[in-house]
Amino acid sequence: MSDKRVKKVVLAYSGGLDTSIILKWLQTTYGCEVVTFTADLGQGEELEPARQKALLLGIKPENIFIEDLREEFVRDYVFPMFRANAQYEGLYLLGTSIARPLIAKKQIEIAEKVGADAVAHGATGKGNDQVRFELGYYALKPDVTVIAPWREWDLTSRTKLLEFAEQNQIPIAKDKRGEAPFSVDANLLHASSEGKVLEDPAQEVPDYVYSRTIDPEAAPDTPTYITIDFEKGDPVAIDGVKMSPATLLAKLNELGRVNGIGRLDLVENRFVGMKSRGMYETPGGTILYVAHRGIESITLDRGAAHLKDELMPKYAELVYNGFWFSPEREMLQALIDRSQELVSGQVRLKLYKGGVHLVGRDSPYSLYDQELVTFEEGAVAYDHRDAAGFIKLNALRLRTLAQRRKKLGL
Amino acid sequence: MSDKRVKKVVLAYSGGLDTSIILKWLQTTYGCEVVTFTADLGQGEELEPARQKALLLGIKPENIFIEDLREEFVRDYVFPMFRANAQYEGLYLLGTSIARPLIAKKQIEIAEKVGADAVAHGATGKGNDQVRFELGYYALKPDVTVIAPWREWDLTSRTKLLEFAEQNQIPIAKDKRGEAPFSVDANLLHASSEGKVLEDPAQEVPDYVYSRTIDPEAAPDTPTYITIDFEKGDPVAIDGVKMSPATLLAKLNELGRVNGIGRLDLVENRFVGMKSRGMYETPGGTILYVAHRGIESITLDRGAAHLKDELMPKYAELVYNGFWFSPEREMLQALIDRSQELVSGQVRLKLYKGGVHLVGRDSPYSLYDQELVTFEEGAVAYDHRDAAGFIKLNALRLRTLAQRRKKLGL
Amino acid sequence: MSDKRVKKVVLAYSGGLDTSIILKWLQTTYGCEVVTFTADLGQGEELEPARQKALLLGIKPENIFIEDLREEFVRDYVFPMFRANAQYEGLYLLGTSIARPLIAKKQIEIAEKVGADAVAHGATGKGNDQVRFELGYYALKPDVTVIAPWREWDLTSRTKLLEFAEQNQIPIAKDKRGEAPFSVDANLLHASSEGKVLEDPAQEVPDYVYSRTIDPEAAPDTPTYITIDFEKGDPVAIDGVKMSPATLLAKLNELGRVNGIGRLDLVENRFVGMKSRGMYETPGGTILYVAHRGIESITLDRGAAHLKDELMPKYAELVYNGFWFSPEREMLQALIDRSQELVSGQVRLKLYKGGVHLVGRDSPYSLYDQELVTFEEGAVAYDHRDAAGFIKLNALRLRTLAQRRKKLGL
Amino acid sequence: MSDKRVKKVVLAYSGGLDTSIILKWLQTTYGCEVVTFTADLGQGEELEPARQKALLLGIKPENIFIEDLREEFVRDYVFPMFRANAQYEGLYLLGTSIARPLIAKKQIEIAEKVGADAVAHGATGKGNDQVRFELGYYALKPDVTVIAPWREWDLTSRTKLLEFAEQNQIPIAKDKRGEAPFSVDANLLHASSEGKVLEDPAQEVPDYVYSRTIDPEAAPDTPTYITIDFEKGDPVAIDGVKMSPATLLAKLNELGRVNGIGRLDLVENRFVGMKSRGMYETPGGTILYVAHRGIESITLDRGAAHLKDELMPKYAELVYNGFWFSPEREMLQALIDRSQELVSGQVRLKLYKGGVHLVGRDSPYSLYDQELVTFEEGAVAYDHRDAAGFIKLNALRLRTLAQRRKKLGL
Repeated sequence: MSDKRVKKVVLAYSGGLDTSIILKWLQTTYGCEVVTFTADLGQGEELEPARQKALLLGIKPENIFIEDLREEFVRDYVFPMFRANAQYEGLYLLGTSIARPLIAKKQIEIAEKVGADAVAHGATGKGNDQVRFELGYYALKPDVTVIAPWREWDLTSRTKLLEFAEQNQIPIAKDKRGEAPFSVDANLLHASSEGKVLEDPAQEVPDYVYSRTIDPEAAPDTPTYITIDFEKGDPVAIDGVKMSPATLLAKLNELGRVNGIGRLDLVENRFVGMKSRGMYETPGGTILYVAHRGIESITLDRGAAHLKDELMPKYAELVYNGFWFSPEREMLQALIDRSQELVSGQVRLKLYKGGVHLVGRDSPYSLYDQELVTFEEGAVAYDHRDAAGFIKLNALRLRTLAQRRKKLGL
Repeated sequence: MSDKRVKKVVLAYSGGLDTSIILKWLQTTYGCEVVTFTADLGQGEELEPARQKALLLGIKPENIFIEDLREEFVRDYVFPMFRANAQYEGLYLLGTSIARPLIAKKQIEIAEKVGADAVAHGATGKGNDQVRFELGYYALKPDVTVIAPWREWDLTSRTKLLEFAEQNQIPIAKDKRGEAPFSVDANLLHASSEGKVLEDPAQEVPDYVYSRTIDPEAAPDTPTYITIDFEKGDPVAIDGVKMSPATLLAKLNELGRVNGIGRLDLVENRFVGMKSRGMYETPGGTILYVAHRGIESITLDRGAAHLKDELMPKYAELVYNGFWFSPEREMLQALIDRSQELVSGQVRLKLYKGGVHLVGRDSPYSLYDQELVTFEEGAVAYDHRDAAGFIKLNALRLRTLAQRRKKLGL
Repeated sequence: MSDKRVKKVVLAYSGGLDTSIILKWLQTTYGCEVVTFTADLGQGEELEPARQKALLLGIKPENIFIEDLREEFVRDYVFPMFRANAQYEGLYLLGTSIARPLIAKKQIEIAEKVGADAVAHGATGKGNDQVRFELGYYALKPDVTVIAPWREWDLTSRTKLLEFAEQNQIPIAKDKRGEAPFSVDANLLHASSEGKVLEDPAQEVPDYVYSRTIDPEAAPDTPTYITIDFEKGDPVAIDGVKMSPATLLAKLNELGRVNGIGRLDLVENRFVGMKSRGMYETPGGTILYVAHRGIESITLDRGAAHLKDELMPKYAELVYNGFWFSPEREMLQALIDRSQELVSGQVRLKLYKGGVHLVGRDSPYSLYDQELVTFEEGAVAYDHRDAAGFIKLNALRLRTLAQRRKKLGL
Repeated sequence: MSDKRVKKVVLAYSGGLDTSIILKWLQTTYGCEVVTFTADLGQGEELEPARQKALLLGIKPENIFIEDLREEFVRDYVFPMFRANAQYEGLYLLGTSIARPLIAKKQIEIAEKVGADAVAHGATGKGNDQVRFELGYYALKPDVTVIAPWREWDLTSRTKLLEFAEQNQIPIAKDKRGEAPFSVDANLLHASSEGKVLEDPAQEVPDYVYSRTIDPEAAPDTPTYITIDFEKGDPVAIDGVKMSPATLLAKLNELGRVNGIGRLDLVENRFVGMKSRGMYETPGGTILYVAHRGIESITLDRGAAHLKDELMPKYAELVYNGFWFSPEREMLQALIDRSQELVSGQVRLKLYKGGVHLVGRDSPYSLYDQELVTFEEGAVAYDHRDAAGFIKLNALRLRTLAQRRKKLGL
């Protein structure tokens, strides 16, 4: 248990059974005032029940904070990350990782406002989320006390948890009595599942685990074509209709959902040191990833594009590991954002049974110049003879190496 | 024109119209003896017609070299590259790039054998292939003379080419009279097309351009499940049946073909400095890429995997730019191969209408340990309390930064 | 020879024999109007003689441009580069490389002003400087014609050059009649020498080659102590005296000169493909490098510092190769500059017989916190027990690897 | 305290007061059998007194292990690291870091031999050495119990330590009664000091802290010239005299010592999250670093050299952080070693009052070719006109960018 006395704690509160137990446990164990914070990041749940439940559990009205963060989430977290084409371990679009810093930031803001000295979260002691929450807390309020109940308490089995709930008059929904067959995280960018039925990586993910996408086999037999407009690296319109960031991502999610897009079955390496197997559904994000690479392909210079590609794994690792509020992530973001100033234009995509296919891109800022690649006579800017010199000087060191081998008989 | 006198030249000869014109042009312009080299890299064409045509054009039988390189190509070039998960600009599996070094190497071997002082190829002066061929030549025989007819001659239009062919009694197939609507490169790993009808990147690739894959919409309505076995990072069996490298890749190509897998419409950055738009079909390679990442996901340690991911863009760039025979590519290969020693096991894949979905992986060398990620009580190796210290020390520098901001009122 | 007709050319003109020959050669060979540009970058030569000589060679007064660029050079080129701690191949402080982009930029500005369609420089065809000049020209004025006389003319020996000079009434200083024993480049950051007497890398550089520093053995027997103040990564004062960028660098040069600091004997890899051996004197820059690392050591966070270190070789390579005006250099600069906002404070240095020794650093923004490293009891922020958890989780994957080896008997 | 019962522990035992206290504390607190391991890594202390002291403290003769590791240390740890030109944070030659893995390895070997289930070390809870030891232990014996007394016990002040020593009849040398003004680590590669008098980074390191080098001001007034011969990246002879690795490094240390070479005053970033200030003396290593870069400069190709430079910071960080026995360090080593096959030849160095100056290098494998860089007419391999094409194609994308800016009026 954290050794400092705690007077007031801001809890990231979902309204669900687990965080309700945490709420009560904080009250009883720490004897401190609990402030709840419930955010809408597009997880697809009503927020009002959380308020009612908090009241029921004895939280004072002025200590209940509920906020719709969807626009801020997409605008200031999701979109900047997609500018980087970030994929952790080559595949994962970081849907869970990117939500944690924003929640942490809001908890700290509330803590400053209400004069709380502590924050608490409901992440377990084996996962990455505890790290992401807490690095965020510490980076924003270095003297904060962090309470991580799952690492502290002795409610280490489902049975004990339910007992505690009953003893403390916490309502238990019927479907929570038994063990969940897997655990879920969701926000506007994605839904993920892990645990139990997913733990054997040799076994295919059962169909009932998916919640955000329909099975590609059940998707429409004809493709859907869409266009996405970009401005400075961010999407701003679908099929010519301008939308706010969150509205746009929600629309992409819907398009992805019906076309069975964005399912990922992954064994990944956690920051805390072990491998885990998860299932991710990122319908809109998967479309956005392809689209962004597409618009970059005609508007970004090679030097800029390759530098971005080389740094992407590091950027993705930082986000995955929870270092959003770190100087190095901010430095990389400055580099990335510098490259996006003319990443504007339109891409056309074909969505079909789980696949996202880029079929066209166009931009007033295009660096693709048909003149230059035409194989016909007469193009001015490119002289074929230049290629000879280009190759000769690029080959010079290789020839010198070969001469050395020859001279030495190697 | 190259200024050195040339006595004997080894030409990369396909038997097609263009390289036949080159053959004749070399004879008439350089007045030198021409040696032809025709290789089977799985491009899907008979080699005997090339021999007949060379004889017809006056090449002496002992100067005609024909070789089946399919196994060497896949074993020593394609597979080592796939160990790196190489993708140029995040998407392109380097199907054209990887074939050039092998052809260059064989031409030089023949040049050494027959005492030729020059080599020639049929790549144009605007593309990457000229660079790849010539860097290979120079790296292996530093004193070789390189003849690149497309950069030298004045046959700069289709009309002039056909005139030259007619004047020199080179047979012209009917379908070669008109302009080809696009140019094609093919080998066992892929087929690519570029030019003409593909030049507007805003326009979707017409269906008739595809040759290696059927349209995903025309692919079977039920998924195909397969397994691939790996040993030390290379695939060795499909559905439990052991196969040679080339046989295995051919089998994957067939599986990919019928399921519409591996189409890529790309605007890429050429080494010679301009952007170009190409269409790539890499059916087997696309399956192999997903499969290899899958087997790595349970057998590679995080440190190894992340290091590979960070270096991949550089490796891919080297292959793309033609630096296969360079110290830095060989150094990276040494690093990569070192990591693959226990990358063995089996993956299971679902192929469906253009998509390759990893659905299972298993290995005697798996580092995925169910014990470690079980959320139940009692696992020994992982103590939840360790996470607190881990986070605290990772947060220390962020807290120090925050304290500085606080102290300075920033 | 460049194939386009040229009407007016802006020549980078030093006033020396070689560029005077170029001037005349441009007039006679291209028959075009010549505009001269002479800049003071701190090379240590008077500029007025260049004007007189240009007039003598028939240049119209309005076509003679002379500019003192010292402050701009140090402020906008040298200092930004030192923020990166840039060293090419681990050692070279890029003194020549960094001056070329500025000269190129000024030539293009003048070309735009006077309506010139071409630019010319006096760099040879084997070195890096031609690349640096011309990449600058093209990046700023894509349609410019570049004339590089050393690659074009037939004045390929000293004898021919002197003949041409005599035929064209170009005055030849007595000491230019013979061959120079080495060639020199100089500006406010450094002086470099290469060629002739330096060509055997096994032989020590003769003492007479040095011009900016006295021999360390002849330097004072007692050390000189100085302080340098930094603001946002740039030096602003020496021994508490505020100075302009160029004045400050000149002062550091003087301090370095008398203490024999900044000599470097280097074999380096040129961008054009061969190795060369050069001698560099960078007295002030060498001091500045040590000083900047020193102030960063207490004001930069580890994450920021390590990211900078990892990217430095790439940044240095870009500058060396002449890609100052490239998106990737600008992106890296954005990243670097982002890190320098609080790199302010003071360092103390000891200069002694060729050595620069950092002996103290202090800053209001210091992240070095004595509390944290005191080995005494009672420090609050750091709990020794946290280290156990930190190590345990960092070790987890290594233990898993070891368990695998054990299980498999490897 | 570690929660597992411990039967037998292998202690890294120096024979000094602190590890003697640990020895006794292990016996009394854990009640386990203690096995001592004392190694000679060139720290400059006799080993026999350690044996006597261990016997005195009740260790059974068969439980006392003493080994001279100097050759193994230099051959298998120091030299491989110098092949990488490793410098942590641009300056630190990793003298402490590189010794820890070897000690850890030997402790584990002894543990396996004597059937011990635990290991212990005397590193504090705030430093990097605890991490380096323990990552080594865990990587080699995943089920080992690690005891880190400084993190566990309550002997948290000098007074308590001395009391414990007296109560347990541990002899206390007179000079250990008072507080040491700084703590020292030493081995054949270096000596380092930190703490107390060094804690204010604004204050110059007092002269009495140095033990391995004489003050540069007191060094000889005339330079010392030496040659070092390399084979495959490792030094093998000084002034033509072949020596074993440890002998050679000892000889370099002596040469460095008398010339005042290798002092470093550094504020560094520890892996555990805080900054610390240390003083390092690495006389021989500093000479070796310069020498190795020198021989590489003529024998390594640019591609190889730049790749090494780009990866060096990562390699150095891994060694610093204690990840010697990690897949990623081994992969990088494979890459580095691949590059060193022809890094053989001789360098000549001038040592003078704290400075190491490379003054000549020569090798049968030299890639430096005087022919190529001669500015005279007639060299065959390099055609000046090639440079034009080389520059043109390198400039192509920059020109395209400029054309875009122009077209758009940016």
